[in-house]
Amino acid sequence: MPVPDIATRVYNHGWRLDPVVRSLLDTDFYKLLMLQLIWHQHPDVTATFSLINRSRSVRLAEVIDEDELREQLDHARTVRFSKKELIWLAGNSFYGKRRMFAPEFIAWLTDFRLPEYDLREVDGQFELHFHGLWTNTTMWEIPALAIVNELRSRAALKNKGRFELDVLYARAKAKLWEKVERLRHIPDLRISDFGTRRRHGFLWQRWCVEALKEGLGDRFIGSSNVLLAMDNDLEAIGTNAHELPMVLAALADDDAGVAAAPYRVLEEWSGHYDGNLLIALPDAFGTTAFLRGAPDWLADWTGFRPDSMPPIAGGEQIIDWWQAHGRDTGEKLLIFSDGMDVDSIEATYRHFQGRVRMSFGWGTNLTNDFRGCDPAGGDGLEPISLVAKVTSANGRPAVKLSDNPHKATGQPMEIERYLRIFGHDGRVSTAVAV
Amino acid sequence: MPVPDIATRVYNHGWRLDPVVRSLLDTDFYKLLMLQLIWHQHPDVTATFSLINRSRSVRLAEVIDEDELREQLDHARTVRFSKKELIWLAGNSFYGKRRMFAPEFIAWLTDFRLPEYDLREVDGQFELHFHGLWTNTTMWEIPALAIVNELRSRAALKNKGRFELDVLYARAKAKLWEKVERLRHIPDLRISDFGTRRRHGFLWQRWCVEALKEGLGDRFIGSSNVLLAMDNDLEAIGTNAHELPMVLAALADDDAGVAAAPYRVLEEWSGHYDGNLLIALPDAFGTTAFLRGAPDWLADWTGFRPDSMPPIAGGEQIIDWWQAHGRDTGEKLLIFSDGMDVDSIEATYRHFQGRVRMSFGWGTNLTNDFRGCDPAGGDGLEPISLVAKVTSANGRPAVKLSDNPHKATGQPMEIERYLRIFGHDGRVSTAVAV
Repeated sequence: MPVPDIATRVYNHGWRLDPVVRSLLDTDFYKLLMLQLIWHQHPDVTATFSLINRSRSVRLAEVIDEDELREQLDHARTVRFSKKELIWLAGNSFYGKRRMFAPEFIAWLTDFRLPEYDLREVDGQFELHFHGLWTNTTMWEIPALAIVNELRSRAALKNKGRFELDVLYARAKAKLWEKVERLRHIPDLRISDFGTRRRHGFLWQRWCVEALKEGLGDRFIGSSNVLLAMDNDLEAIGTNAHELPMVLAALADDDAGVAAAPYRVLEEWSGHYDGNLLIALPDAFGTTAFLRGAPDWLADWTGFRPDSMPPIAGGEQIIDWWQAHGRDTGEKLLIFSDGMDVDSIEATYRHFQGRVRMSFGWGTNLTNDFRGCDPAGGDGLEPISLVAKVTSANGRPAVKLSDNPHKATGQPMEIERYLRIFGHDGRVSTAVAV
Repeated sequence: MPVPDIATRVYNHGWRLDPVVRSLLDTDFYKLLMLQLIWHQHPDVTATFSLINRSRSVRLAEVIDEDELREQLDHARTVRFSKKELIWLAGNSFYGKRRMFAPEFIAWLTDFRLPEYDLREVDGQFELHFHGLWTNTTMWEIPALAIVNELRSRAALKNKGRFELDVLYARAKAKLWEKVERLRHIPDLRISDFGTRRRHGFLWQRWCVEALKEGLGDRFIGSSNVLLAMDNDLEAIGTNAHELPMVLAALADDDAGVAAAPYRVLEEWSGHYDGNLLIALPDAFGTTAFLRGAPDWLADWTGFRPDSMPPIAGGEQIIDWWQAHGRDTGEKLLIFSDGMDVDSIEATYRHFQGRVRMSFGWGTNLTNDFRGCDPAGGDGLEPISLVAKVTSANGRPAVKLSDNPHKATGQPMEIERYLRIFGHDGRVSTAVAV
């Protein structure tokens, strides 16, 4: 009979709240890179971020208690960057570069806190919006998603016995390790954890990151999660996201400005970052349109992150573009990050092997794959397609078209307008699982 | 960062010894039933028990440190029955019967301690013998096996990292639960844990027993391990073993006495026990010979435990014998316990379903199946075929023929003599894995 430590036990039983978010570094690295750019270039822009549950059949507000959600959101708003965290941000090298973050920016982070939220329940779903300065609201994306996803996991696990939980996590660990053993067979694999937003929970993501570190060695190049990167002496991985072209397009005064927005983003970006951070995300308004209008100098960038086309089709299109611009693709980098799992990683790797450098961002299927693990069955732990997207900037509606119409966001009228501007070429409907 | 409890940590790091055997109830129930009979009928007989490693290729003395083995054996000799344990033995019902153990017997147990041992290393193996009164040496069988098997597991795990161990046990748990889910599909299954002697370790056996209790419900009828039965409010399961006919045959003055020994055991047994404890173990000197000479009244017993013939062949032979004696086999019980695992349990169940009552004793493949679980590979956790058998009684050699010549024990000359007495009929060589 193991003797429990009484103080620990009493403390555990008295918990008022088990926070999902305990650090503002518990976010994706690209948010910090983008934040510095936004803070510098667009300090006065307001932007609304909104939770969007693409898995409509999962009625989140019937699964997650609204009070619990408020408690977690409220708790996240109390969190500040700690001294240790800011010292690390200032002193660490990112992508091989020291002083990635300007001292004035870090000074500004000292007082940063997440802004207010606007939550209500409508027809079984949560309407959750974050209004305010872009520099503040952008930072809600990842914690909001992590909170909702983890509360959903907790709800699914709430009435399980100790033994059922034991089997469930044993299976999940065994399952992930099978994946690790398969990935070990890919000789030059470069893979990173991109699984913060859709994770089962923080502790589970931490286990997954430790598993990849232990099992993949050099093949595991880092984590998008800044906190886990810091704590595990890993590289923090990430570049930029759709919100940049979405906001700049929303702010544009006319259709020409909308059409030019994706390239203005690149100019702004290259004013702040260089080297391996010069990765273009081509699909905000369709990859085909993006490449058709892309300036020649973009071919000097390090690579692309195709994010909504099927990976092989998307990669081929980009390789064609590089070749049409006379570049040696063997030096270029493609980062695949859209719903990847071992099968698609293997297939994509085999397809492009020797023709281009590759790296994989492994998200939901890394940190939230409990399919078949629950001894009681049920779908409460199935991952859902939940995003937090910018929906307006300075009061004007924001749009994402994506290569996959299922991933489009924005008001229908605006989507129509953007489609007139960018065209339909290359857009393919693909089921969105995660 | 979890905060470790300092006292617990200091205590753990200061452990002189992590005992394998912490209770004299951490043994098989049949040992206590047999002990009461031996104590009553044969209090002056001396019997030597010896460790026999049938997996010769595993050089145990090169795997297990002799000093560690001595420490564990010495520690086991310090253990006494606790008051609580004796009160439970006196007050609990076993096989539906109260006061299974006589008050005088329980009084005698109060002072019981395991007798001395005789250990040396010969050619990479341990020679481990227990000399003394049968009432004392018989009780070494299970702890000696559990100690050697657990020390072997510990040696295999010694240099593994925390993460490797985590994956290893996660896989083992997932693997066992797959078995549980398969067994759940057998409607009238009756199965018990018989895995004490060959277990991976005590804590793992406890987990396995909890898994069966949780996952199989009423299908799980109990554990042979008396301590686990007590702690988990399960039935203690078991009847008798080969040592009874082996000792009585060894003590016989002539060949006729040897031939009669297996039936004398049954008479002695039925003088002490009745009901569902009237289970005959037919294979000490060959099942075919045993049934040929068996008295008619044995057909009134509850059942048989075929233990070394292939289960279907052994069961059929016993059913034929019952039918030849005009008994309704639908009321009879067959207990299968020889190296069973899910495949053979399913096959045996399907074969005999509706013709006879069945129950399964699940041993090594329940409590020591780590095949394929070690991330680093290797065979250090493969179960081995280790037994502790009576090798002489009152200085005269003891013999077991078994239905499987690979399981025969004793001096070659004596085995020849016993084969002349009992014959070779029905003996089939089958590889002994566990």
